[in-house]
Amino acid sequence: MTNDNDTTPASGAQGLTPAEVEERLIDTVTASFAGCTDERLTQLMTSLVKHLHGFIRDVRLTEAEWTATIEFLTKVGDITDDQRQEFILLSDVLGASMQTINVSNQPYKNATEATVFGPFFVDDAPLIDNGGDIAGGGAGQPSWVEGVVRDTEDNPIPGARIEVWEADEEGLYDVQHDDDRVYGRAHLFAEEDGSFRFWGLTPTPYSIPDDGPVGQLLADTGRSPMRASHLHFMVTAPQMRTLVTHIFVEGDELLTSDTVFGVKESLIKNFEQQSADTPTPDGRDLAGQTWSRARFDIVLAPDGA
Amino acid sequence: MTNDNDTTPASGAQGLTPAEVEERLIDTVTASFAGCTDERLTQLMTSLVKHLHGFIRDVRLTEAEWTATIEFLTKVGDITDDQRQEFILLSDVLGASMQTINVSNQPYKNATEATVFGPFFVDDAPLIDNGGDIAGGGAGQPSWVEGVVRDTEDNPIPGARIEVWEADEEGLYDVQHDDDRVYGRAHLFAEEDGSFRFWGLTPTPYSIPDDGPVGQLLADTGRSPMRASHLHFMVTAPQMRTLVTHIFVEGDELLTSDTVFGVKESLIKNFEQQSADTPTPDGRDLAGQTWSRARFDIVLAPDGA
Ligand SMILES: [Fe+2]
Ligand SMILES: [Fe+2]
Repeated sequence: MTNDNDTTPASGAQGLTPAEVEERLIDTVTASFAGCTDERLTQLMTSLVKHLHGFIRDVRLTEAEWTATIEFLTKVGDITDDQRQEFILLSDVLGASMQTINVSNQPYKNATEATVFGPFFVDDAPLIDNGGDIAGGGAGQPSWVEGVVRDTEDNPIPGARIEVWEADEEGLYDVQHDDDRVYGRAHLFAEEDGSFRFWGLTPTPYSIPDDGPVGQLLADTGRSPMRASHLHFMVTAPQMRTLVTHIFVEGDELLTSDTVFGVKESLIKNFEQQSADTPTPDGRDLAGQTWSRARFDIVLAPDGA
Repeated sequence: MTNDNDTTPASGAQGLTPAEVEERLIDTVTASFAGCTDERLTQLMTSLVKHLHGFIRDVRLTEAEWTATIEFLTKVGDITDDQRQEFILLSDVLGASMQTINVSNQPYKNATEATVFGPFFVDDAPLIDNGGDIAGGGAGQPSWVEGVVRDTEDNPIPGARIEVWEADEEGLYDVQHDDDRVYGRAHLFAEEDGSFRFWGLTPTPYSIPDDGPVGQLLADTGRSPMRASHLHFMVTAPQMRTLVTHIFVEGDELLTSDTVFGVKESLIKNFEQQSADTPTPDGRDLAGQTWSRARFDIVLAPDGA
């Protein structure tokens, strides 16, 4: 197969140019998935390999940069645990999460647009009645949020399950604390006429967790870790496409530089500021605090749309 | 900014098609690196974002697939520690490690070709004299390996540092055991005439560690976790490009299906089988064992070549 004292140039031995060697490797790697019986997985792996190798070839990745990448991913793995999902953060700041939403959750008629899920949802948030308070002791300006859940034919969707979650005025979600506090999250169900209403907190900007490798990447690349102010929603109903979205605050300076690229124009809402002496919609006594109110009418696409 | 009772189709609101929305997101993400003062890092991130988003768009990645990817990477991070580097395995089985070698370590004249580093090198392997044994008690057929280290002008390189490492006949490296055994690895230095020689083990095939997520990926895609039999080398000398390579065993059935795509034709060597009664080159008494011998002449490229 080879002459051990061979001094022919290595590339010449096979008659291939470096570019041909690179291309042949891509062919060899994609061919290695020929035995995969899952057609979709084969498609995913083939495309992944082509784009991954395309990146390596385009930038002429050095071995030192490869090593730095391995070390970076290792750090992302190290800091990730049940409470901290640095891989989601990484996907978010690269716009990969938002692009996944774009391609898998395309606009349908007048259905409400989706945006990124984020890493701070938890499954077992408290149940509240309509008009209840999701703040759960979290600090911030009270905000009255109301709307109606409908389908794209304008029919109300009674019983739609609405999950809402948000950070407090310090910019922290409850799960970012070491203790067991639950605040700034709840779920409720739409009424017979599709309407819902709750007290929450006027959303404020926050930094994504930036004490890990993703924060370092943002710092190294001159990017801000700040997210535009927002309130998360996940809305589910039988036979309807699950809606994962946020609403954003009109006038927020961060709307154009959200670090996870989650802002869509249709999701920007007017959180109208109210003076302390404006009567609240439900007569609640806010003890002299100012408050805000916002309207968010939700339109769900049919499942499979 | 928006009419809260707006029922205009969401995409229509900005006059963009879904494809335009996807393209605009890529532009927005790449533009977010405009403040990065490290030109190379900007180039890397821009290309990474384009290829990553290209992948997501090409396969129309679903949210469930995105979630599965995050979970996969989380598992890769979980199993990675000081002894186990699953991110390197992942890079290896996707051919990314080998492609990095291709683009960053191109053939130069008759210099010996490079291949993947692998995850099993350790820094502080024992020093042996020429003619010594790297096996260190590791089990396998003895193999006499010899050669000369030269530059591309045919001058010997005295004092070149040669690191060698390999698995035992069970297919395991010392670091894959829970104990502190050191076997199958050493370093030595080329003589005044550039020559070197040592006893090792005839390389045998082995499985990469396949009890983690990368092994599961290989199983799911119908791929074998087996590596072609090989002996690792890293050769360093002042003013010379560091050579990281293996030699492979002529006739090994796995040469065409090495799971990390590391085989290069010029690196396949004849490990010539010797009967038990063939005298050894250094008179060593092998107590009736068969043995093999291989020649590997090494040519180093100049640094920066
Ligand atoms: Fe959030
Ligand atoms: Fe190896």
